Amino acid sequence: MTGNESASKKARTDEKFQLFYWPGIPGRGEPIRLAFEEAGVDYEDVAYTKGVSAVTGLLGTGAHFAPPILRNGDLEISQLPNIMFYLGPKLKLVPDDDARFKVNQLFLTAMDCQNEAHDTHHPISTGLYYEDQKDAALERAKDFRENRIPKFFKHFEAVLAANKESKHEWLVGDKLTYADLGLTYLVEGLLFAFPRAVGELYSKFPKVFALHQRVKVRPRIKAYYESDRRKEFSNCVYRHYPELDAPEKDIDEVVPGKGGKKQPAD
Amino acid sequence: MTGNESASKKARTDEKFQLFYWPGIPGRGEPIRLAFEEAGVDYEDVAYTKGVSAVTGLLGTGAHFAPPILRNGDLEISQLPNIMFYLGPKLKLVPDDDARFKVNQLFLTAMDCQNEAHDTHHPISTGLYYEDQKDAALERAKDFRENRIPKFFKHFEAVLAANKESKHEWLVGDKLTYADLGLTYLVEGLLFAFPRAVGELYSKFPKVFALHQRVKVRPRIKAYYESDRRKEFSNCVYRHYPELDAPEKDIDEVVPGKGGKKQPAD
Repeated sequence: MTGNESASKKARTDEKFQLFYWPGIPGRGEPIRLAFEEAGVDYEDVAYTKGVSAVTGLLGTGAHFAPPILRNGDLEISQLPNIMFYLGPKLKLVPDDDARFKVNQLFLTAMDCQNEAHDTHHPISTGLYYEDQKDAALERAKDFRENRIPKFFKHFEAVLAANKESKHEWLVGDKLTYADLGLTYLVEGLLFAFPRAVGELYSKFPKVFALHQRVKVRPRIKAYYESDRRKEFSNCVYRHYPELDAPEKDIDEVVPGKGGKKQPAD
Repeated sequence: MTGNESASKKARTDEKFQLFYWPGIPGRGEPIRLAFEEAGVDYEDVAYTKGVSAVTGLLGTGAHFAPPILRNGDLEISQLPNIMFYLGPKLKLVPDDDARFKVNQLFLTAMDCQNEAHDTHHPISTGLYYEDQKDAALERAKDFRENRIPKFFKHFEAVLAANKESKHEWLVGDKLTYADLGLTYLVEGLLFAFPRAVGELYSKFPKVFALHQRVKVRPRIKAYYESDRRKEFSNCVYRHYPELDAPEKDIDEVVPGKGGKKQPAD
């Protein structure tokens, strides 16, 4: 599948990019896709055009530890934050000056939280099934929901609150950058994985959620979400196991006064 | 403490850098110090010159999620891989061309392994003591020793084996880069944390360990290790808990034939 043909007339660059990533999931390839889509770039998502063997063929050779991998002409690079740093100026998703390092800093921080989200379902080993590390997963997920997500969101909320230049709409400067795409994807993934826990945070971190919404309705991003290029979450870095999410609330807690008083336990 | 005065005559840059990081440990600040030291730069390690409050004062403001933080003139940035990417060209620790993205890729991969090393002693929560998550730590450390360290080292060995340009001495191109400093620090930290497990790997990954040794005897790095600017490992990202290391080997296994045959268990 070659993405984004319809938007290619106004593409921010005519360079030809190939993305090598696992098919069928958004995963760690998704921030790269979001960047291409926002920039209206005609990229090749190689797992769909040439099959997954084109991805696995680049691993285990000493060239790359893991996908995502980006190819542009003779250059072939991996590591998601590295790829974003490379693409940022080409896709005009960073300022021209040293503020690009602020963008990179915030993208890396969002990805730190993303990595911690992964470890909630694989706290012991990536080589074991979730079911075989479920006890530790329950503990780690509780800590992640109650301490880590709020800590990261508080940071991003403060960054947005401090950025008067964008009227608190974007993380750095007065335009969307790839840090905003990274945060949007983080929020999207966490809402999928922990809908109850993250749903409780809207009122505490309104600027973070407003940014997420602002990105999702941008014309090219919206078109991407409505296309078959965008894959649904399933078993990638973000996974939804209901038992790892916050417990269901009593109806009493959700709608005050509704359903009568709680019965004391026997 | 201001580092490296003796080497400042031949410094690779005259810019004035300030490093904000926790005092008393190498931690995630160390690759930055190694870069400054290798480049002969006169940097200020602010926790020692102005106290730890100068570090904590930069946190919780929406500016930085965590140290290390680098200040250079008006620019103040955090996130270790971001700081290294910024410093790379200034300290001449990357090639001038797009190969700098290969350097960054490999540095990020080394730091992924470093983050996994951290999670061996804190697999559930950074907010709990090690002792309160020891069962999970024992499991995660076993997986890390047996599967993850060998997987990462195999990758770096293959990268070195493929790099004919440096006669297999450096990861990228024909000179030391900050990827080599990152790998050196990773090996150093893992040897501290898991001496038995990592000591077993010398013969399997000779190029990785040779690189580590090659960096440690470079004049400026050696002078740094012998100075009081270099702090010993204790409780940072790398920690030594003997029970998390590989079990002690029977003398029979270490010296074949010595000590007679193993007695069968009753």
